[in-house]
Amino acid sequence: MERIDDLQLKGLRIIQDSELFCFGTDAVLLADFASPKKGARIADLGTGTGILPLLLYGRQPDITVDAIEIQEKLAATAQRSVELNGLEGRIRIVQGDLRDAHRLLGSDYDMVVVNPPYDKATAAIPSMDESHQAARFETKVTWEEICKAAGRLLRPGGKLCLIHRVSRMAEIFETLRACRLEPKEMRLIHSRLGSEAVCMLLSAAKDGRPSLKALPPLVVHEADGSETAEVRKIYHRNGEE
Amino acid sequence: MERIDDLQLKGLRIIQDSELFCFGTDAVLLADFASPKKGARIADLGTGTGILPLLLYGRQPDITVDAIEIQEKLAATAQRSVELNGLEGRIRIVQGDLRDAHRLLGSDYDMVVVNPPYDKATAAIPSMDESHQAARFETKVTWEEICKAAGRLLRPGGKLCLIHRVSRMAEIFETLRACRLEPKEMRLIHSRLGSEAVCMLLSAAKDGRPSLKALPPLVVHEADGSETAEVRKIYHRNGEE
Repeated sequence: MERIDDLQLKGLRIIQDSELFCFGTDAVLLADFASPKKGARIADLGTGTGILPLLLYGRQPDITVDAIEIQEKLAATAQRSVELNGLEGRIRIVQGDLRDAHRLLGSDYDMVVVNPPYDKATAAIPSMDESHQAARFETKVTWEEICKAAGRLLRPGGKLCLIHRVSRMAEIFETLRACRLEPKEMRLIHSRLGSEAVCMLLSAAKDGRPSLKALPPLVVHEADGSETAEVRKIYHRNGEE
Repeated sequence: MERIDDLQLKGLRIIQDSELFCFGTDAVLLADFASPKKGARIADLGTGTGILPLLLYGRQPDITVDAIEIQEKLAATAQRSVELNGLEGRIRIVQGDLRDAHRLLGSDYDMVVVNPPYDKATAAIPSMDESHQAARFETKVTWEEICKAAGRLLRPGGKLCLIHRVSRMAEIFETLRACRLEPKEMRLIHSRLGSEAVCMLLSAAKDGRPSLKALPPLVVHEADGSETAEVRKIYHRNGEE
């Protein structure tokens, strides 16, 4: 079932199909963390419904985003969302394999964003449909392939912004560095203040100097289960800045 | 000037010389994080005044600790602290180079603890005396050499517990893994809830399965500058458990 959702962000809307993968909190937190500068040229690897380009545009309208998506149906839906919002001049959706991103998109990007599949293909649930499976498991692309693609797209000093599982942190760092992407800022996401962090926001700089900053923890819920003031602010940051 | 300090932990005391390196908060947090099991055989790499063995013993008396220290004066002071507390049967101080630890101490340890120099030798302050310099900068031993030593001392499944600078996290993880020490649990230490984490507590398992847990943040101070309840509890955990 296809539906149009209001992003509550500068009147932006997104087309989603409940049978395909729909965006979640991850994308909202990542867009806020990435907060691109004016004039930035950005690439989005595996854009799905095109949520990240829209959320990034909502925060900073003076950007261009080239977004790649391998699944034809999702890429077509993303393209229609771009048109629905009249953003053809800002967001370009390219249907293709992100392993070919440097050929399909170009190079010298200021920023690459990616909300990758969190788990290895070996953990995949066979009964899941292809779209959900590809969003969650590395069935179509591995973390290493994503890093390689990002490394080729970025200019020196350019920034990769991502969200990923904490459990894979050591491997994630190692693969990034092997692709000359140096981890620079990390923010752990804790569901509650006293709970373990399952996910992290991370930026890495192409050819950056080794030195990581660990930002204050991002706490999603108060002890009573309600959203924290910071997360409410992230969700409702509808362009007053 | 030599003095005897009360550790406020089961009547334990430590001899420190104000002209040599004295222990700090780091050691207290690390001992609490390590919390060894009953019967554990532990090695301490670069024990300084012997603070970690004493704090570990204070938390769990049913352990033995072999502690190595290269500086003769510090090793002698540590030995006198052991005798002062009558712990010759529990804590062995060995004067020597930790790069030879596997020859000087042995192998098959359940746990290795280390409070290493945080910064590279290139950052060393020339005017500093040797003892303080060696505690803070890698003038006598590098992180890689520490990891190699720990890897040789531990039994399969044995645990390295350490405290280190967040800024070096990517390098720290990489070196650990190169020595077959897999990062397993990490706890970021934030001076205040809203501030960056400068240090982290970390455990790594010899030949462990890759999967990292990020524990809740350890916050040292309340907004008003007073110690948090958790840190007060760590400081005054004087053996009621």
